[in-house]
Amino acid sequence: MRILGIDCGSETAGWGVVEADAQGTTFIAADQVDLNRGEPLAERLLEFARQLRLVIEQFRPDEAAVEDVFHAKNARSALRLAHTRGAALLILAERGVPYAEYSPAQVKLSVTGYGRATKEQVRHMVEALLGVSLVSVAEDACDALAVALCHALRSGYSVGASGTL
Amino acid sequence: MRILGIDCGSETAGWGVVEADAQGTTFIAADQVDLNRGEPLAERLLEFARQLRLVIEQFRPDEAAVEDVFHAKNARSALRLAHTRGAALLILAERGVPYAEYSPAQVKLSVTGYGRATKEQVRHMVEALLGVSLVSVAEDACDALAVALCHALRSGYSVGASGTL
Repeated sequence: MRILGIDCGSETAGWGVVEADAQGTTFIAADQVDLNRGEPLAERLLEFARQLRLVIEQFRPDEAAVEDVFHAKNARSALRLAHTRGAALLILAERGVPYAEYSPAQVKLSVTGYGRATKEQVRHMVEALLGVSLVSVAEDACDALAVALCHALRSGYSVGASGTL
Repeated sequence: MRILGIDCGSETAGWGVVEADAQGTTFIAADQVDLNRGEPLAERLLEFARQLRLVIEQFRPDEAAVEDVFHAKNARSALRLAHTRGAALLILAERGVPYAEYSPAQVKLSVTGYGRATKEQVRHMVEALLGVSLVSVAEDACDALAVALCHALRSGYSVGASGTL
């Protein structure tokens, strides 16, 4: 099963695609979309939607996993993030990609075994589980891969680099 | 100038179209979209987007006006509302409709002369300014007309039923 993970922030949004099968999980692609370039919010949402549609077209995910929003640095950030998330959910529905939602704590717990893991711990475990180095991958893209891995695990797939288990 | 007003709520979203010219403002159409039918959020956003695209296609607004979100009954409502608003802004950008944003207080002040006007006072003034009865028009649709009238006024149009000024 190919899984698209999405992590919406107020300034950026990350996406990451992994392939999960009986052998484990494989890294396919990941990137981050800058949402804070001084353009009106609608223009930034349009650019995000354009990129998300391209990602879905190119990588044809079977399912998606989206980080839920309950908290953010502040209420204003949470509202911005929710705008981006609304656009993301619309694109998923438009393209017929079913999705699951996970809280940040669920993602951290699934991937690192600890619900309050740091960003560094999450990155370290995502690298270990996918068997790749993510040094050149942006923070939100890495978080999106963690969301995708969380979904793989909760869907019953064994998480771990393909061929190394 | 034809103006599309949009008022996003957490349970419903209203839209209203008015025509503003040198003679005043005319009611064109308004309705409310139910966003709370037990379907997943993405499906509801998709239905809202479908209706909004139809409205834009049918009434061809030159500009849009969207109520800003700072407050809601609670944080959870504000976040739901922001998802809907994100979808709305994406559709406006997609269709190339420029938009302005107004706070609820700005809308009330413009339309009724009082920034803390009640829903009933707003409805009464929208009816007076458009010269129509809105008894069969849903609350959020009426609010959306108020947002459109606010934009007409702030764009320099005299607000008042065409032909009666």
